[in-house]
Amino acid sequence: MAKIIGSPLANIPWQDKPKDTHGPVWRYTKNPIIHRNPAPGVSRIFNSAIVAYKNKFVGVFRAETTATLPHLRLGYSDDGIQWNIEQHPIQFVDEKGNPWQPYYAYDPRLIEIEGIYYIVWCTDFHGPTIGLAKTTDFKTFIRLENPFIPYNRNGVLFPRKIDGAFKILSRASDNGHTPFGDIFLSESFNLVHWGKHRHVMARGGSGWWQGLKIGGGPAPIETDEGWLMLYHGVCNTCNGYVYSMGIALLDIDEPSKVLYRAGHYVLTPEMPYEEVGFVPNVVFPCATLHDSKTGRIAIYYGAADSYVALAFTTVDELIQFAKDNHEKVGDDDAIGR
Amino acid sequence: MAKIIGSPLANIPWQDKPKDTHGPVWRYTKNPIIHRNPAPGVSRIFNSAIVAYKNKFVGVFRAETTATLPHLRLGYSDDGIQWNIEQHPIQFVDEKGNPWQPYYAYDPRLIEIEGIYYIVWCTDFHGPTIGLAKTTDFKTFIRLENPFIPYNRNGVLFPRKIDGAFKILSRASDNGHTPFGDIFLSESFNLVHWGKHRHVMARGGSGWWQGLKIGGGPAPIETDEGWLMLYHGVCNTCNGYVYSMGIALLDIDEPSKVLYRAGHYVLTPEMPYEEVGFVPNVVFPCATLHDSKTGRIAIYYGAADSYVALAFTTVDELIQFAKDNHEKVGDDDAIGR
Amino acid sequence: MAKIIGSPLANIPWQDKPKDTHGPVWRYTKNPIIHRNPAPGVSRIFNSAIVAYKNKFVGVFRAETTATLPHLRLGYSDDGIQWNIEQHPIQFVDEKGNPWQPYYAYDPRLIEIEGIYYIVWCTDFHGPTIGLAKTTDFKTFIRLENPFIPYNRNGVLFPRKIDGAFKILSRASDNGHTPFGDIFLSESFNLVHWGKHRHVMARGGSGWWQGLKIGGGPAPIETDEGWLMLYHGVCNTCNGYVYSMGIALLDIDEPSKVLYRAGHYVLTPEMPYEEVGFVPNVVFPCATLHDSKTGRIAIYYGAADSYVALAFTTVDELIQFAKDNHEKVGDDDAIGR
Amino acid sequence: MAKIIGSPLANIPWQDKPKDTHGPVWRYTKNPIIHRNPAPGVSRIFNSAIVAYKNKFVGVFRAETTATLPHLRLGYSDDGIQWNIEQHPIQFVDEKGNPWQPYYAYDPRLIEIEGIYYIVWCTDFHGPTIGLAKTTDFKTFIRLENPFIPYNRNGVLFPRKIDGAFKILSRASDNGHTPFGDIFLSESFNLVHWGKHRHVMARGGSGWWQGLKIGGGPAPIETDEGWLMLYHGVCNTCNGYVYSMGIALLDIDEPSKVLYRAGHYVLTPEMPYEEVGFVPNVVFPCATLHDSKTGRIAIYYGAADSYVALAFTTVDELIQFAKDNHEKVGDDDAIGR
Amino acid sequence: MAKIIGSPLANIPWQDKPKDTHGPVWRYTKNPIIHRNPAPGVSRIFNSAIVAYKNKFVGVFRAETTATLPHLRLGYSDDGIQWNIEQHPIQFVDEKGNPWQPYYAYDPRLIEIEGIYYIVWCTDFHGPTIGLAKTTDFKTFIRLENPFIPYNRNGVLFPRKIDGAFKILSRASDNGHTPFGDIFLSESFNLVHWGKHRHVMARGGSGWWQGLKIGGGPAPIETDEGWLMLYHGVCNTCNGYVYSMGIALLDIDEPSKVLYRAGHYVLTPEMPYEEVGFVPNVVFPCATLHDSKTGRIAIYYGAADSYVALAFTTVDELIQFAKDNHEKVGDDDAIGR
Amino acid sequence: MAKIIGSPLANIPWQDKPKDTHGPVWRYTKNPIIHRNPAPGVSRIFNSAIVAYKNKFVGVFRAETTATLPHLRLGYSDDGIQWNIEQHPIQFVDEKGNPWQPYYAYDPRLIEIEGIYYIVWCTDFHGPTIGLAKTTDFKTFIRLENPFIPYNRNGVLFPRKIDGAFKILSRASDNGHTPFGDIFLSESFNLVHWGKHRHVMARGGSGWWQGLKIGGGPAPIETDEGWLMLYHGVCNTCNGYVYSMGIALLDIDEPSKVLYRAGHYVLTPEMPYEEVGFVPNVVFPCATLHDSKTGRIAIYYGAADSYVALAFTTVDELIQFAKDNHEKVGDDDAIGR
Repeated sequence: MAKIIGSPLANIPWQDKPKDTHGPVWRYTKNPIIHRNPAPGVSRIFNSAIVAYKNKFVGVFRAETTATLPHLRLGYSDDGIQWNIEQHPIQFVDEKGNPWQPYYAYDPRLIEIEGIYYIVWCTDFHGPTIGLAKTTDFKTFIRLENPFIPYNRNGVLFPRKIDGAFKILSRASDNGHTPFGDIFLSESFNLVHWGKHRHVMARGGSGWWQGLKIGGGPAPIETDEGWLMLYHGVCNTCNGYVYSMGIALLDIDEPSKVLYRAGHYVLTPEMPYEEVGFVPNVVFPCATLHDSKTGRIAIYYGAADSYVALAFTTVDELIQFAKDNHEKVGDDDAIGR
Repeated sequence: MAKIIGSPLANIPWQDKPKDTHGPVWRYTKNPIIHRNPAPGVSRIFNSAIVAYKNKFVGVFRAETTATLPHLRLGYSDDGIQWNIEQHPIQFVDEKGNPWQPYYAYDPRLIEIEGIYYIVWCTDFHGPTIGLAKTTDFKTFIRLENPFIPYNRNGVLFPRKIDGAFKILSRASDNGHTPFGDIFLSESFNLVHWGKHRHVMARGGSGWWQGLKIGGGPAPIETDEGWLMLYHGVCNTCNGYVYSMGIALLDIDEPSKVLYRAGHYVLTPEMPYEEVGFVPNVVFPCATLHDSKTGRIAIYYGAADSYVALAFTTVDELIQFAKDNHEKVGDDDAIGR
Repeated sequence: MAKIIGSPLANIPWQDKPKDTHGPVWRYTKNPIIHRNPAPGVSRIFNSAIVAYKNKFVGVFRAETTATLPHLRLGYSDDGIQWNIEQHPIQFVDEKGNPWQPYYAYDPRLIEIEGIYYIVWCTDFHGPTIGLAKTTDFKTFIRLENPFIPYNRNGVLFPRKIDGAFKILSRASDNGHTPFGDIFLSESFNLVHWGKHRHVMARGGSGWWQGLKIGGGPAPIETDEGWLMLYHGVCNTCNGYVYSMGIALLDIDEPSKVLYRAGHYVLTPEMPYEEVGFVPNVVFPCATLHDSKTGRIAIYYGAADSYVALAFTTVDELIQFAKDNHEKVGDDDAIGR
Repeated sequence: MAKIIGSPLANIPWQDKPKDTHGPVWRYTKNPIIHRNPAPGVSRIFNSAIVAYKNKFVGVFRAETTATLPHLRLGYSDDGIQWNIEQHPIQFVDEKGNPWQPYYAYDPRLIEIEGIYYIVWCTDFHGPTIGLAKTTDFKTFIRLENPFIPYNRNGVLFPRKIDGAFKILSRASDNGHTPFGDIFLSESFNLVHWGKHRHVMARGGSGWWQGLKIGGGPAPIETDEGWLMLYHGVCNTCNGYVYSMGIALLDIDEPSKVLYRAGHYVLTPEMPYEEVGFVPNVVFPCATLHDSKTGRIAIYYGAADSYVALAFTTVDELIQFAKDNHEKVGDDDAIGR
Repeated sequence: MAKIIGSPLANIPWQDKPKDTHGPVWRYTKNPIIHRNPAPGVSRIFNSAIVAYKNKFVGVFRAETTATLPHLRLGYSDDGIQWNIEQHPIQFVDEKGNPWQPYYAYDPRLIEIEGIYYIVWCTDFHGPTIGLAKTTDFKTFIRLENPFIPYNRNGVLFPRKIDGAFKILSRASDNGHTPFGDIFLSESFNLVHWGKHRHVMARGGSGWWQGLKIGGGPAPIETDEGWLMLYHGVCNTCNGYVYSMGIALLDIDEPSKVLYRAGHYVLTPEMPYEEVGFVPNVVFPCATLHDSKTGRIAIYYGAADSYVALAFTTVDELIQFAKDNHEKVGDDDAIGR
Repeated sequence: MAKIIGSPLANIPWQDKPKDTHGPVWRYTKNPIIHRNPAPGVSRIFNSAIVAYKNKFVGVFRAETTATLPHLRLGYSDDGIQWNIEQHPIQFVDEKGNPWQPYYAYDPRLIEIEGIYYIVWCTDFHGPTIGLAKTTDFKTFIRLENPFIPYNRNGVLFPRKIDGAFKILSRASDNGHTPFGDIFLSESFNLVHWGKHRHVMARGGSGWWQGLKIGGGPAPIETDEGWLMLYHGVCNTCNGYVYSMGIALLDIDEPSKVLYRAGHYVLTPEMPYEEVGFVPNVVFPCATLHDSKTGRIAIYYGAADSYVALAFTTVDELIQFAKDNHEKVGDDDAIGR
């Protein structure tokens, strides 16, 4: 039995696996957990990230007002299901305390490293790229240097340093609806200068669901078998992109090395709230909660760019699925060339 | 309190605003009012225009047969909700009475000016452009000169002359699924020669919903604060265009001058009949009824290129919303250079 | 009254035409007959072909696993509605018995000719083209030469030889989401060498539903008035392709000659299982069952690339509809120049 | 023998037709007449228009500085071949004398009507469209209303009123390198309001040279057989657009009616200064001089967007060529529908 | 030393290899041999094919009139360098003698098989595909069935039957400026029915010159080491396609099997007549003459879609070059799967 | 008078400015200095970089063999004009001495910093990005970490550290013929980790020549007025991209700050070797030599992707030109947000 390395989380949201479920992931029966128009002037909340915090839960949400400008908002929850979203966007400052607000901000991830909470999102910088900020109290949010020049999206920090270095996943993109994209890994010792870039995983494979592009999802989960990485894979039908959820297991010390990667998706749009909405046919995972005691994992994902939904799995289900359906796609060479 | 300049309309279709409505516009609870396959051989009716006429209502409808050729049909209604659609397309003649039928015709507007009813639509003329016809009895429909060379769409006449001139809104387009477009204003003294073209509003703004293109909607409503203009705004997702409804207030004497323009939409596709259909995610307003006594406004809009739907608002709701959410986008220079 | 030439089929699936049906084709009330995730590891089954076989029914199904690689599977049914799908893909061999498995395989047709069952599908051969195989027992499947070089799709064999020659419909395509395409006819005396290519029908017409491309559907049905050909027609909206079903009647001796072709579709996406799914707005017919005694026809069609659905009609309904709505589109010249 | 209606022009630039010339137009042997870098800070002059003026010649030139912003400059010549270009761009004012300078201005035409000289060019107005200005002394240039909303290019005025109305040719365009385009005709009585739009000629024909788009060239030449119109036709090779010169004869009273139109070009890029330059393979006629006494015509054309070149022909050569090679392409219906 | 299998040709055009030539092919020093405007009304002749015939030479030429419609013309020459082109297009009839003229015809090849001369070209058949005709006297040209449905180009017959079957090379294409394309082989016993399609060579390789698409050139030359095949390879620069000439050696009995294929081109556009013209940067070989006694080969190629040019080589030069620069690109599997 | 900070270079190649030169840069009269086919098997050398080295000159050249695979070669020269190119590609090793050869390598720059020579080029790393290597003896070439993940091109190091940090210019790109692109600046203290990314200059401006994209050229030249940066600007005509040369002056301490930037190009394709070749209309500067004593600058640039050419200027000419033609384009904000 695989083990999650980390804290127990007794109050993790949970439902047991239904009997007739084929795949390794099952949906919360009362999905979506955040509906359209969840607050005055807020049109849609989706593609959002949450963490456990002081026996409760806090989240950074991609919100769009009725003006459709994507921005980030804070939210709180006692149970991880009912969420109170704040009235105003998160206000960022630079390290001197001066305001430094992004024009747009979307698809956030939220990761704790050594007691500091980092927000990673897609920001504007003469084109879309990765934004980075930190907070310790969810009151002051200090922006750091943007890790990359454009065009980049889907930045995801690892939840601890490796060999003393911060590690980030990202996807090289273009400035539109990027019709290509692989996952890369980079490191930094000061969160300012990034380097030793490595190619982690390529789009493609025997099936089509991840043939167009792939991108990191929630922060990888540390296990005794490696880093468990949920990610999204995209294919291009004649009627648009379809976003599914995939699973891979990365080497614990050298996470650019892929140990296992399932050639099959673990979740794909099949429910009305995933198939219909502002962008139909999207399942987009951004965060997990996990309980090291039971191995339970709760996955938060955006649905159809219109809803937040919740799904469940366990560390065993995912690792077994990755092994059973392992398929090597592209290279995962160690020295990054 | 803002006032609508115009006639009272006691029998305007109406439902009061539900308590939990955030925005300024609310949907008719029994939407859609025209379903798929409303008559033998007619597949879909949508994007249509109506006016009050002799204590009842008359409309010009965009109909598509099961051969999917768009054409215009007349319809009658006692209450503005139940509609009887005629069996055959509207027959147009030229000013000498000779037949002059468009090959295709879509997205009509219907405007009364000094007792004459004008139909403005998208017609074929070596490419799509604006068609124009008039009737006084809804029996004889006389086509006038096409106001513009291609490529143009979404022509909308003002409901009265200004300084003696007819005024028309239109959108310069291309000959496909136009991925750009602003609203322009032109004038004419004889409905034949058009000039003094002015740029009214640009696509774009702080949000994305109107970032790709915009186009006129119903005939502007005259108020004591200016011309109230509902219009559509479009954004381009990776899975297609999304059409929302917006609001602006134009100067009463110089309507190329934008007084207020909401940076937020007033309605966006959220209901199944708006999200799913021949063209998913479309809300496309073409006509209003309004009652000067109460300030009530009933908006007729096409939904998903498959249905006709109805929504309600008041002159106060819209003007207040435009002011509260005012955002300057592009120029509205007075002399049109 | 038109007559189907062929065997009676007393156990054909059937429901009588509902009273309020406008068009010539009506849906099975319990559609879809195959849902998502119909078997472990199988994500979607759609665009599939079936035949009557030994008082029961056998089918060749386009299945996609959760890895989304399209392949072909066998299935059996007692009533044509409840289907048991086999656990593994069909295994093909060449004429010497050596394995010859396609990398991908989709959109199969299944046609009996002189006691031999032929599968025609879209296969990989340095690009998509037509694959061809035969079986007599549904146990051994022998691949024959690919009839065409790429790029080709929607190959459909006629159910008997004409003047001693096999006849096949196909559509010249490109290597992507082909934005064009007409139906061609070719002949062969040995199923290896193909020639005398004729143009059968062009895309286009007075309406838009078949304006982008068309492609063959089920094997044509022989009648005393000609070959009855169901096919699909596609139009391109700003939000993607819409696939509808059309009908034409071809000359019995010279099937490149179109006798009648309806300018109106006979079925278009209108139900949730047709409008919503992996590829929204798709109705894609691949097979029919028909009963020469009653003239009944059961149509199997893929819906939204996610489901198998069933619809009903009769030979009289279709032929009458083709005649009543006849429209000449492009040429159907006899000698193929 | 055809006759030019108009003044004699004894000092027209001229060379007799060389013996071995196949086509109806022959090049000046010392082409180009304006080379690259013709003046300090001026990079290229091309696509320019000239008229006879007080026994000499005056021209409006498309100039590009080394900053490549296209603008208009005046130039003078004694012989129509050696040109002195002014140091500064033409300064435009509005009718009140206030400055009204275009941001960019290109491809001018220059036409005298009743003693007033009109400049028509492609100007910026929220997209490219037709600009219009007048002068009587080539010192004060008064801009008038823009005749059209965007997107439009290649505006050409007729050299006299017809039935009391000004007439203008133009081409509906898009906002890029327009891959389509036909020639339209519109009229005005006050140079402000334009209407009665007519379709004159479609792109296309039996050959490829004018299959992509066509656009008006010099002001049409009045003859006793109709308006002689030189224009450009464009085809799209795998290595870019090729611009050739074509000829048509329009009805003298109803110039939207095409009497003759040659299916063959009269000049195509064949000389190094036409094949090589900033935009290779461009021959772009903008102006003619003509002598009613001899029927001689001198054609000024831009070459490769880098040079001004000169070619010669006669009214008889052109009309005979149009008749001998007449081909009907698209419609030329009288009432413009 | 390799040997050409075939007749001697004492009067083959010839120049010895210059001393400073690096590559295996050298140009005729008086190139081009056919210039622009070679005859009245003929604009350009290029991409043409010739054969030795009765001690002289005959050719089928791609000609374009000043209307730019491509068609085929016959030409005669005593020395293979000076050509007399006929005044009118080749007239084709069907097998009953009825006229069967292509609308357009381009890029012909001309191959003798058992005393019959076959013309293979790109013809119109609801899209571009391969046309086929035969003649024995160069007076009567009988069209046969088109070998393939669209979209296809660059059909090339082998100069003798192999195992009793005619063999043809072709390239699957699209209906535009095809941005992809490999070479396929098909066979026929009656020139009507074609099958046993095999993939011969893929585009691509270690270099870029043949990375976009490749297509057959002259009829393969039979040698004692295999079929020597000159072909064209295309790459896509930011300023258009560049066409170069490549060499491969195919198995004598199974010509879908590539024995050697040079990763280096043998000729690329470097001379003004190849770099500049209607389509810049094109070298397009269509025919060879060869002398079995000396091993000399004369290559006729189109240059810049504007000229016919001539180059020389020997069987030894080409085979040695193919061996020395051999590179395996894609597969050449024997049974066509 | 501006001064170059750096060493004198008495043997710099030089020609005085001709009298009739308008612009600040003049061409070497015997251009090109490297022609096509400069060595056996080498097709074209262009876009190459050189430095003064031990009283002579050494260069790193972009070479393409007749297989058209771009790679880097070393070359030596006594006078900077006559070059001996080595027979084989440069061999790279990693820091342990193991071979680490790029698959392709193009557009190199060569910069000396503190006695070490750095090569920066466009390399393959799951897409094009910047490659980096160093040498001290031009015998051993040690590759360092790639500074960026894809997609990136036109990396240029500054010739000295600034505030202790290496500085690099680069351009975010896509994986094709990138139709957009600005210049960015990044810093590193160890040549491994890069950060503090700043936006230096945007494409665009009042003219078109640099409206599509811009990219760094030679290593900036240090002067007492700032860093003198030659770069390339690209515009998109209907017949392809045109590459010109531009000039800007950057702040000496904060080089993301643009002090002056000429809105006019300093060189644009006008000579046959620039207008005609593998990629027509390209002037692409990669290196300079400069003499601090005289202020002379020799510019090496690629021409038409086919030649190496040489041009001359002085520090005064360039700085004066940048000041005289200064135009602010986009932002150059100091803190890079």
